[in-house]
Amino acid sequence: MTRRSGDEDVTTSQDVTPPQHLMDPREVTDWWSTGVSRIRPGEILLRGYPVEQLIGRLSFAETIWLMLRGELPTRTQGRLLEAALVAAVDHGPQAPSIAAARMAATCGLGLNNAVATGVNLLGDVHGGAGQQCMRVLTELERAVAEGADVDDAAKDLVAEYRATGSHVPGFGHRFHPYDPRRSPLLDLVGAAVADGEAPGWALRAGTALERALAEGRSRPVPMNIDGATAIVYSELGFPPELGRGLFVLSRSVGILSHAWEEKSGGARIKGPIPRRLLPSYEGPAPRDLIRPEGGEGEKSEKSGESEKGEESTNSPDGAEGA
Amino acid sequence: MTRRSGDEDVTTSQDVTPPQHLMDPREVTDWWSTGVSRIRPGEILLRGYPVEQLIGRLSFAETIWLMLRGELPTRTQGRLLEAALVAAVDHGPQAPSIAAARMAATCGLGLNNAVATGVNLLGDVHGGAGQQCMRVLTELERAVAEGADVDDAAKDLVAEYRATGSHVPGFGHRFHPYDPRRSPLLDLVGAAVADGEAPGWALRAGTALERALAEGRSRPVPMNIDGATAIVYSELGFPPELGRGLFVLSRSVGILSHAWEEKSGGARIKGPIPRRLLPSYEGPAPRDLIRPEGGEGEKSEKSGESEKGEESTNSPDGAEGA
Amino acid sequence: MTRRSGDEDVTTSQDVTPPQHLMDPREVTDWWSTGVSRIRPGEILLRGYPVEQLIGRLSFAETIWLMLRGELPTRTQGRLLEAALVAAVDHGPQAPSIAAARMAATCGLGLNNAVATGVNLLGDVHGGAGQQCMRVLTELERAVAEGADVDDAAKDLVAEYRATGSHVPGFGHRFHPYDPRRSPLLDLVGAAVADGEAPGWALRAGTALERALAEGRSRPVPMNIDGATAIVYSELGFPPELGRGLFVLSRSVGILSHAWEEKSGGARIKGPIPRRLLPSYEGPAPRDLIRPEGGEGEKSEKSGESEKGEESTNSPDGAEGA
Amino acid sequence: MTRRSGDEDVTTSQDVTPPQHLMDPREVTDWWSTGVSRIRPGEILLRGYPVEQLIGRLSFAETIWLMLRGELPTRTQGRLLEAALVAAVDHGPQAPSIAAARMAATCGLGLNNAVATGVNLLGDVHGGAGQQCMRVLTELERAVAEGADVDDAAKDLVAEYRATGSHVPGFGHRFHPYDPRRSPLLDLVGAAVADGEAPGWALRAGTALERALAEGRSRPVPMNIDGATAIVYSELGFPPELGRGLFVLSRSVGILSHAWEEKSGGARIKGPIPRRLLPSYEGPAPRDLIRPEGGEGEKSEKSGESEKGEESTNSPDGAEGA
Repeated sequence: MTRRSGDEDVTTSQDVTPPQHLMDPREVTDWWSTGVSRIRPGEILLRGYPVEQLIGRLSFAETIWLMLRGELPTRTQGRLLEAALVAAVDHGPQAPSIAAARMAATCGLGLNNAVATGVNLLGDVHGGAGQQCMRVLTELERAVAEGADVDDAAKDLVAEYRATGSHVPGFGHRFHPYDPRRSPLLDLVGAAVADGEAPGWALRAGTALERALAEGRSRPVPMNIDGATAIVYSELGFPPELGRGLFVLSRSVGILSHAWEEKSGGARIKGPIPRRLLPSYEGPAPRDLIRPEGGEGEKSEKSGESEKGEESTNSPDGAEGA
Repeated sequence: MTRRSGDEDVTTSQDVTPPQHLMDPREVTDWWSTGVSRIRPGEILLRGYPVEQLIGRLSFAETIWLMLRGELPTRTQGRLLEAALVAAVDHGPQAPSIAAARMAATCGLGLNNAVATGVNLLGDVHGGAGQQCMRVLTELERAVAEGADVDDAAKDLVAEYRATGSHVPGFGHRFHPYDPRRSPLLDLVGAAVADGEAPGWALRAGTALERALAEGRSRPVPMNIDGATAIVYSELGFPPELGRGLFVLSRSVGILSHAWEEKSGGARIKGPIPRRLLPSYEGPAPRDLIRPEGGEGEKSEKSGESEKGEESTNSPDGAEGA
Repeated sequence: MTRRSGDEDVTTSQDVTPPQHLMDPREVTDWWSTGVSRIRPGEILLRGYPVEQLIGRLSFAETIWLMLRGELPTRTQGRLLEAALVAAVDHGPQAPSIAAARMAATCGLGLNNAVATGVNLLGDVHGGAGQQCMRVLTELERAVAEGADVDDAAKDLVAEYRATGSHVPGFGHRFHPYDPRRSPLLDLVGAAVADGEAPGWALRAGTALERALAEGRSRPVPMNIDGATAIVYSELGFPPELGRGLFVLSRSVGILSHAWEEKSGGARIKGPIPRRLLPSYEGPAPRDLIRPEGGEGEKSEKSGESEKGEESTNSPDGAEGA
Repeated sequence: MTRRSGDEDVTTSQDVTPPQHLMDPREVTDWWSTGVSRIRPGEILLRGYPVEQLIGRLSFAETIWLMLRGELPTRTQGRLLEAALVAAVDHGPQAPSIAAARMAATCGLGLNNAVATGVNLLGDVHGGAGQQCMRVLTELERAVAEGADVDDAAKDLVAEYRATGSHVPGFGHRFHPYDPRRSPLLDLVGAAVADGEAPGWALRAGTALERALAEGRSRPVPMNIDGATAIVYSELGFPPELGRGLFVLSRSVGILSHAWEEKSGGARIKGPIPRRLLPSYEGPAPRDLIRPEGGEGEKSEKSGESEKGEESTNSPDGAEGA
């Protein structure tokens, strides 16, 4: 990159060449490229819309749609999404996500850390059933698209699950014989389908599954919140993975509410059960560490066997966290 | 468990007393006592309301209010809360919370874990300014309630902060000369105050602070999103700590949107800068471990001094995460 | 609680029967039953050993073994585990787990929250390769146990992976042509096998895979840290899932060290790239929100198309986190 | 940056000037500058030492020291650190950090996410007491350095705490009348001081505090694990904030062990109490949502008052997490 002109080398490489080590900053700014928002001095665009135009005019649920989908929802879409978000906000302190957040709130953390703790628990098993149900609905729709009758396809699918001893995600509840959130959500979807505002395929698939699961059983397997919201989100065109994402936004409300209640109560280092109750111990009996210092083959001397069944409430005052 | 035999009461103390080790389950269920929700088979009450009555009738923002406050908001309160929630959803990948969630999404985690990662970062410094500003507004209001002029009190408070070299939380932005979210929010609050739907004290305090901060400066110190939402939340009667909680709910939307965008893009183990760029190293120069095995006083032999300024882009192919 | 008055047994059912609602506290204490530790007033047993006997006598690595496995390791086992834990402590700020923890440390969080943030990212992709490699080693061993030659089995396995275009976990590195951590770890395993202190099957399987991957290639596919630690942990009898668990303990050291360095540096709300560089924007061009208030069918008016390629460094002062 | 030499302009500005938009990559690589490690192709330096020299030669505890402090510990320092790390690994499922991690492990998360959940809870209250105690020890040492008698200074400090009704961090335990971890740790420190391997000031300050707290009380206030490790870490020269960091590394072992035990047990969506027990409800009695659709002033009709004391075990089958 240095060039000679005449006799002299008139520039040192240091002077004239764009130093090899210089780089186009685009390489760095592209590394963080996004289509979600553009932030410049004095400007905040969300999916292209200036934020100041959204404030006071879009609902929070519509804003969630816009941010996740890139375009505005119709009013009906916004309302359906809103209904599903409202439906799943809480299921009480028995849910480990809620309990963990409440305990976190007593450990000297900010509310953000308490909420993060609860949200972290909405995994494949705790928060992922809706996502899985959306996949099942899609699978059923594929069969229908290929010409199958939806009830036949649902029966086949249920039979498959039963053959492997597994549950169809989104159906059945070990707690609610009938989930009170199911019908209001399905009614809203039904109305939207009737108005031509939703395609209807997921509602059809979900209710077919419910029928297939009920068949020949005295006690039907009711659709649960995961199934009902899976129908809503599928009708709205969300990909399955965002089913979990939306559940996270919804349940964060309950997590925050419970964390706040706990924090307001002033408890410190709250364990899962009252202090005077000690977890049962089923490990090895007390034993001494017997180690030839410095040598190999050190052994412990067991002074007893595993001891299931010790009493565990003899503590006068309860356990501390640390 | 009591048994009679003939005339005598043969119940032994062992028979008739509730065995000492038995306990009232209330001790356990009270440990998790809550006023937020009641979950029973077939029943979900949120703050006393059956969830099926809320679905389709309350907005998501109103549900957030109900869950956090215990009672329904008025329409105006619901709309103000909604506006503030919409305003703060995102500030792009330069925000560490967003960047961390995007990176998390490339590491093989569920979206819940990616959102939790981002939310975890909304701490005292990143997400806590609104909470702190709410405290400042309250402090100012207290002075006013005790008879001070709001502008005088604001000037005093600004002077105090300047004397200690610290910033008044909620004002100033290293990025936006003027925060586009400020005025739409303040206009909504102003309208609510005019309609008698909001008390007005926090708006009065916040704008007085803004005036006091601008005084005698060519370049004013603009109210930022933390200050504007602090006014909204204070007018609505939320305690300061919930200011951060509400910010968490709002920003979760942007965190989820960015995590989803990143996940959809398919990147794996995304680091903060392009792979070929290596972090600068300013630690000790390479040195050998020289340890008399087994003895005390082992020393290392430094082969050089700290070496600020090594080149750091000589990598052909970039760094892996693990 | 039973009282007699004259001849009659006056105990009411309320007095004498253990109220039906009473419960055995064991139901609750068993819910949290554990074999890991027994904590009673004045007593802490870890896997049966009084903690006061372990302090100063077990190494930290041996304690990790005891806690996870339930019994003491031999000296050799303890040393092998220690070597693997030492090997994986850090891979610099290019690792998203490290970068996220460093950013977290600038957001006003405790070090515990910063470490949790980093650890959260050690997921299936970022921290799970060792776990997956342990499964592959087991699979290979199974084939050998059924009579296959280890090299033949390794070749078959490599061919399978190549057929599907996927990588054998634990091998290859987009950064290191040769992972400096591989040989010291394998040498230690080799010595333990020679001494009869380790079974040798995983070392045999892992090196066979390495040979099979190198075959016919000018540039071999070197075993990486995930592969080398997978061999160590497999030789030591850990189940694959604990491979990830041990990596978490190891990498936590680097995460903490980096979070602490960053916190000591005093940065606030550190984004992923220098402030003046703005993430590229590839979303919709600026557009106005046009919504018939209150009605359906609101549309936005796009004022432009997606705009890849805007300049993105025009910011004078950099982005703030909030 | 172009310069002329002789008659001709031998380079065009296009050739010789670095285009204005180009940047020095150092700006980016310096943004992530670190002294902890240098990672280059084929090279991993930890604080200057090639990692391959550390594997098999440094203990895990010594490596932790090196990574956090930048230099190698002496053997004695390494052993003291090791002892403190061993001492605090677990305190059973009553600790909210352990319980949260166990619950997380049942929700379909990787072990990394379960550990992160537990670590997140080691906040100011749960994990921060050691850090706070280190500050108290330093404060006491400062008084001694200024000429005060250590016992007098300790008495003054205890009196101050008692005057405000607060506890001296690191002392007292609501569970252990005597913490079994205290004396082994203090004995090790004492031996190191006797050997001239530790300065002794923190041991002196801590035991003076213990004496001051015991004075005039029938039941002394024993030093707890936070106090004992605070002495160790202070003697070793760690800053207070790293006291919490080291506790995080130590307790991560217990968190992982418990999460793994729970995961191995196969529970799904484990709540804090057995399923049939429902959290007590103390919120508003059931009430109907009565809202004039579309208008202001919507009211709810309370059908009852808050109802503390409902029975809460009538559930046949327990609560689900979602």
